[in-house]
Amino acid sequence: MEKKVKILGFVGSLRKGSYNKALMRAAVELTPENALIDVFDLSPIPPFNQDLENAPPQIIKDFKAKIKSADALLIATPEYNYSIPGVLKNAIDAASRPHGDNAFDGKPVAVMSASIGMLGGARVQYHLRQSFVFLNMYPVNRPEVMLAYARDNVDENGNLTNQETRKLIRMLLEELVRWTKKLQA
Amino acid sequence: MEKKVKILGFVGSLRKGSYNKALMRAAVELTPENALIDVFDLSPIPPFNQDLENAPPQIIKDFKAKIKSADALLIATPEYNYSIPGVLKNAIDAASRPHGDNAFDGKPVAVMSASIGMLGGARVQYHLRQSFVFLNMYPVNRPEVMLAYARDNVDENGNLTNQETRKLIRMLLEELVRWTKKLQA
Amino acid sequence: MEKKVKILGFVGSLRKGSYNKALMRAAVELTPENALIDVFDLSPIPPFNQDLENAPPQIIKDFKAKIKSADALLIATPEYNYSIPGVLKNAIDAASRPHGDNAFDGKPVAVMSASIGMLGGARVQYHLRQSFVFLNMYPVNRPEVMLAYARDNVDENGNLTNQETRKLIRMLLEELVRWTKKLQA
Amino acid sequence: MEKKVKILGFVGSLRKGSYNKALMRAAVELTPENALIDVFDLSPIPPFNQDLENAPPQIIKDFKAKIKSADALLIATPEYNYSIPGVLKNAIDAASRPHGDNAFDGKPVAVMSASIGMLGGARVQYHLRQSFVFLNMYPVNRPEVMLAYARDNVDENGNLTNQETRKLIRMLLEELVRWTKKLQA
Repeated sequence: MEKKVKILGFVGSLRKGSYNKALMRAAVELTPENALIDVFDLSPIPPFNQDLENAPPQIIKDFKAKIKSADALLIATPEYNYSIPGVLKNAIDAASRPHGDNAFDGKPVAVMSASIGMLGGARVQYHLRQSFVFLNMYPVNRPEVMLAYARDNVDENGNLTNQETRKLIRMLLEELVRWTKKLQA
Repeated sequence: MEKKVKILGFVGSLRKGSYNKALMRAAVELTPENALIDVFDLSPIPPFNQDLENAPPQIIKDFKAKIKSADALLIATPEYNYSIPGVLKNAIDAASRPHGDNAFDGKPVAVMSASIGMLGGARVQYHLRQSFVFLNMYPVNRPEVMLAYARDNVDENGNLTNQETRKLIRMLLEELVRWTKKLQA
Repeated sequence: MEKKVKILGFVGSLRKGSYNKALMRAAVELTPENALIDVFDLSPIPPFNQDLENAPPQIIKDFKAKIKSADALLIATPEYNYSIPGVLKNAIDAASRPHGDNAFDGKPVAVMSASIGMLGGARVQYHLRQSFVFLNMYPVNRPEVMLAYARDNVDENGNLTNQETRKLIRMLLEELVRWTKKLQA
Repeated sequence: MEKKVKILGFVGSLRKGSYNKALMRAAVELTPENALIDVFDLSPIPPFNQDLENAPPQIIKDFKAKIKSADALLIATPEYNYSIPGVLKNAIDAASRPHGDNAFDGKPVAVMSASIGMLGGARVQYHLRQSFVFLNMYPVNRPEVMLAYARDNVDENGNLTNQETRKLIRMLLEELVRWTKKLQA
């Protein structure tokens, strides 16, 4: 039997009713049979201070261990002020350090974003992609999952109701699995 | 007597020996006579959670009050993973919220960056500039202050020893003052 | 009588039925009373070769003269391959040279974009804004005019039929005029 | 005997003494034994007009055929106005069209840049990388080849004299070959 591709997901918003948490939940529901998604909660991660990077708190050790043992990563994130949410970027910064122990090194990754406006968080995706170059990550090119007008597409229970976006998420996951296997071959 | 232009400075690194703190200290030393620089410490700012944005902690209230009462802003920041440090971005996110109470609205701003590599943090400056569009801030175009090879240009006491960069910082401050007055006219 | 603000417009697509030409035509129709828009056709501009920059063809001399005599600029452009169309960028490159004779120096500018997809050309606007830093231009922050699904919003005669976008274009022009006067004061 | 990896190179500057042509020449000299570099001259490519994309000039047909028959691409380019030179972007735009016949689809790619300033053209590389997402290209993450202060590092005959950059170019080519084989496997 084929080994399942292990995907670690995390979300760039701490808000309880986050539309990006809805995207991540949809991804978990839509996980292909040959994959598994485990979701990591970024809320306990403290502000990164380089002076302390050699003795990180347990939560950073856990986050890094989860990243390292994953075959691929999945990020769902809002766009804050036309860029990456500080909370998400801080988690990435913490897990990329210290020098020589970047947990993200060589990992395939896929990104989804949701916003209440017309752009669906497009701008955050390209800033993340620039970080991926330094982190030596391998992002999937397409499909790009950007959920616009999120208020109209997530119900009161936090379920993603937009069927086209659900289809795109499924395609993104299949592509992430294909891409991961290609890179691991 | 002319009123002095009040500049609020903050630094994107929490590291004690931060090269960007050295840039900010140099800026304070080089403040033009018709300006004042007050520096705000971002280290106590907790991870932003939108659910709590209407009842922010005191530190956010203080940060926002300082920003609002300033005539202009000065940011010194490293580049983390080819983008804005999470710690800095998180502070910006917190002070830009809730909707309708963006403390940065309409503020002139100047940016400096330092790095140990050859680019002097160039990449973080353009990501910040994209955020400034949404924040409705007015960045100075030039000079661009990017200190490369910071290890060789800051002494053991945290003093910026590179004379050309000191000159550029002085020019940047003069331009920030001129720009602020133009926008306030 | 107040002097009218002279705006020079140009379009990043050479296509006859260009949706961005439709945006520019709408802008001309919606010109505020205290402004004038003159549109320059980029199609005759040849590929820029730095070896020839000191003896540019007449079309470049004309373009530069028009830019210099304008109070402000207005750009309408599609997004090609997630960035600035080569045709538009080439025209900007040509008019920014030779060193010391950058026609764009100090000019206020506003940008509009249209695309057949959901993003309305958002990505091209931020790449242009990065060029504006070096060119020492002063872009309007908002409103941002991005026409999505352009096929459904421009009629067969090339008229922009989307009323909300027409309103935004009018607001953009009023802001460009206000901004230009502020910078000229 | 192993088949050699065919690399198509092109340069974003038309200037005769271009520093980026010097980078490309160095790359040709430093080609690994299991690869071949063929260089295509972009100077005859006319401004792209979408109305004519279904009947492109012979030079575009030739460029597209060369791209398609290559295993990988190598771009050497200056940074113009903090972004992609119009001449280079126009060539990319032309060869990516019409819809459904994007010559770049699926190609591995590596980028080098040179500038007379301290940044070595860093900014152009990230704008190109954003285009690669849409073009569905697969860029090498590292090393990043950015030649700063090009005037001091290229001799009067157009030879790249900086030994560290020559070493980096060789590493970049080896990585491009490795990456291409991985993607073709």
